[in-house]
Amino acid sequence: MSITSREIRLKSRPVGLPTADNFELASVTVPAPGPGEVQVKNLWMTVDPYMRGRMMDRESYVPPFQIGEALQGGAVGEVVASNAEGLKVGDLVSTMFGWREAFNAPAGAVQKLDTHGLPPQAFLGVAGMPGLTAYVGLIKIAALKPGDVVFVSAAAGAVGSVVCQIAKLKGHTVIGSAGGADKVAFLKQIGVDHVIDYKAEKDLTAALQRAAPQGIDVYFENVGGEHLEAALNVAKPFARFALCGMISQYNATEAPKGPSNIILAVGKSLKLEGFIVSNHFDMAPAYLKELSGWIQSGKFHWKETVENGVENAPKAFLKLFSGENMGKMLVKLG
Amino acid sequence: MSITSREIRLKSRPVGLPTADNFELASVTVPAPGPGEVQVKNLWMTVDPYMRGRMMDRESYVPPFQIGEALQGGAVGEVVASNAEGLKVGDLVSTMFGWREAFNAPAGAVQKLDTHGLPPQAFLGVAGMPGLTAYVGLIKIAALKPGDVVFVSAAAGAVGSVVCQIAKLKGHTVIGSAGGADKVAFLKQIGVDHVIDYKAEKDLTAALQRAAPQGIDVYFENVGGEHLEAALNVAKPFARFALCGMISQYNATEAPKGPSNIILAVGKSLKLEGFIVSNHFDMAPAYLKELSGWIQSGKFHWKETVENGVENAPKAFLKLFSGENMGKMLVKLG
Repeated sequence: MSITSREIRLKSRPVGLPTADNFELASVTVPAPGPGEVQVKNLWMTVDPYMRGRMMDRESYVPPFQIGEALQGGAVGEVVASNAEGLKVGDLVSTMFGWREAFNAPAGAVQKLDTHGLPPQAFLGVAGMPGLTAYVGLIKIAALKPGDVVFVSAAAGAVGSVVCQIAKLKGHTVIGSAGGADKVAFLKQIGVDHVIDYKAEKDLTAALQRAAPQGIDVYFENVGGEHLEAALNVAKPFARFALCGMISQYNATEAPKGPSNIILAVGKSLKLEGFIVSNHFDMAPAYLKELSGWIQSGKFHWKETVENGVENAPKAFLKLFSGENMGKMLVKLG
Repeated sequence: MSITSREIRLKSRPVGLPTADNFELASVTVPAPGPGEVQVKNLWMTVDPYMRGRMMDRESYVPPFQIGEALQGGAVGEVVASNAEGLKVGDLVSTMFGWREAFNAPAGAVQKLDTHGLPPQAFLGVAGMPGLTAYVGLIKIAALKPGDVVFVSAAAGAVGSVVCQIAKLKGHTVIGSAGGADKVAFLKQIGVDHVIDYKAEKDLTAALQRAAPQGIDVYFENVGGEHLEAALNVAKPFARFALCGMISQYNATEAPKGPSNIILAVGKSLKLEGFIVSNHFDMAPAYLKELSGWIQSGKFHWKETVENGVENAPKAFLKLFSGENMGKMLVKLG
């Protein structure tokens, strides 16, 4: 059956902070699925900070979005027509065909989703890429070990809030930085030991020093800039930094200020390591097993910030940079 | 026997680039050695960039030098009187009692030196801390593996020139950066594949890209600043940076400019790791065994830049920052 799908296309490449004008809404007709294909209606799509990088025309670990074409990203949808073996109408599927209401795809490009009783959109958050990112960064890249004091920036975000909870569940002292009273309250609710409201602090290093008088062993980096400098200042010898993202720099129009104290990495024997979750999908089964236990025991919490309708996907995306999201930023399409 | 020793004391803490005024020459009387002590006349002492850090009054991995007291550092000397078992007149010893002509010390504070046919001052350079620093950084921290393209900054220095040669002897493509025609010639002589005269380049990233069109796998960091930015720009995914020092920043009087492109560490999954050689002395036997083979086969070369007399030790030290040394900077005392 042929259906109409609205989608968001990249109209122009953002310079600096993206605006609504960089996006355009369009309608396309999705024909009946061909042989071996399914037709999917999306229920939820995700917007994530990393997508800002794909809006630039540059070589990177994922190819750039193309102007005039629909954007891409994680989505969870429902099969509405199927010519593919093993997939039937009503099946939930996880795909990278976000930013649109519906699409056809070969069976190999969709992943059947067994929700294990979780809401489907959890697979775009705690049980999806952001959750696994938190786990990989903390367990593998930062090589979390007993007694570590853990500092997390953007701690109330989709990745940060999972980092905080994994570290707490594993018995660590956790310091989380976020901006604003609502986020601070959320972090206290999920058991973060010391919450820094960075918007209320003049001197982030001093604030971190008060929270961690003996220093930090692990820094989970989501922000960059002053957060990275503070972490370098307060790091204990042999501390490990998992570099997951630096959202403070994604919209920079000129070369951002680098960490002026990077030399501390020498004297303190620090390790700073960047990572991309897609290189570590082998850790997904271990993460989902642990996560499942935590959720079943009622010890794991998450927040969602939701916009409704594909036409509001750009708005949801822009909120990531104004810090208006708490936990996972999602767009409900179904 | 009581003897006179001249020594260099820290007169004032340098602000910015040190000057001769920060140092003073003094004479002390060294009495006959007490029970269990030896009396040593130094033959050679070393000056190294890391000593600049010890001239600041701050907490670090080594305690700061004290004003009015003799400086310390590596030295090789000869026992001239002994009340210690196992040490006799004429023995060569390696100690941390540099910056002075003679001293008494308990036997436990000196290390008897078997030169294996090398000149004694080699144990302040290729066969000493700088050599081991090169080996540890390259083999352990950067985890050198077959096929790696290696970039070395301050490549003609005491550490850098050993890094270049180890990497060449292990079959790697090596790119070395140094300033000036003499250093370039030396690096070519020791087989460095691509030599960058950074003083003659306007755009270090472009120069490095020409030298390593496919990118670099390992960066041995001695300089910081633009060198670090260029290495980040030209790094291949999963490249490893051994952070040994950042001499361009040691004399900064205000916060130096950090690497504005540090965010590349995320997308390229880079690992930047600082290290201090004293945490890795367990690797010394392996290094000395390999080094011995290389020297015996005539494949290993080194340069020394020598000042004469303890009164010229400050001058030698200052040359490290003007880049006037080629290879190991030494002061001959004997």
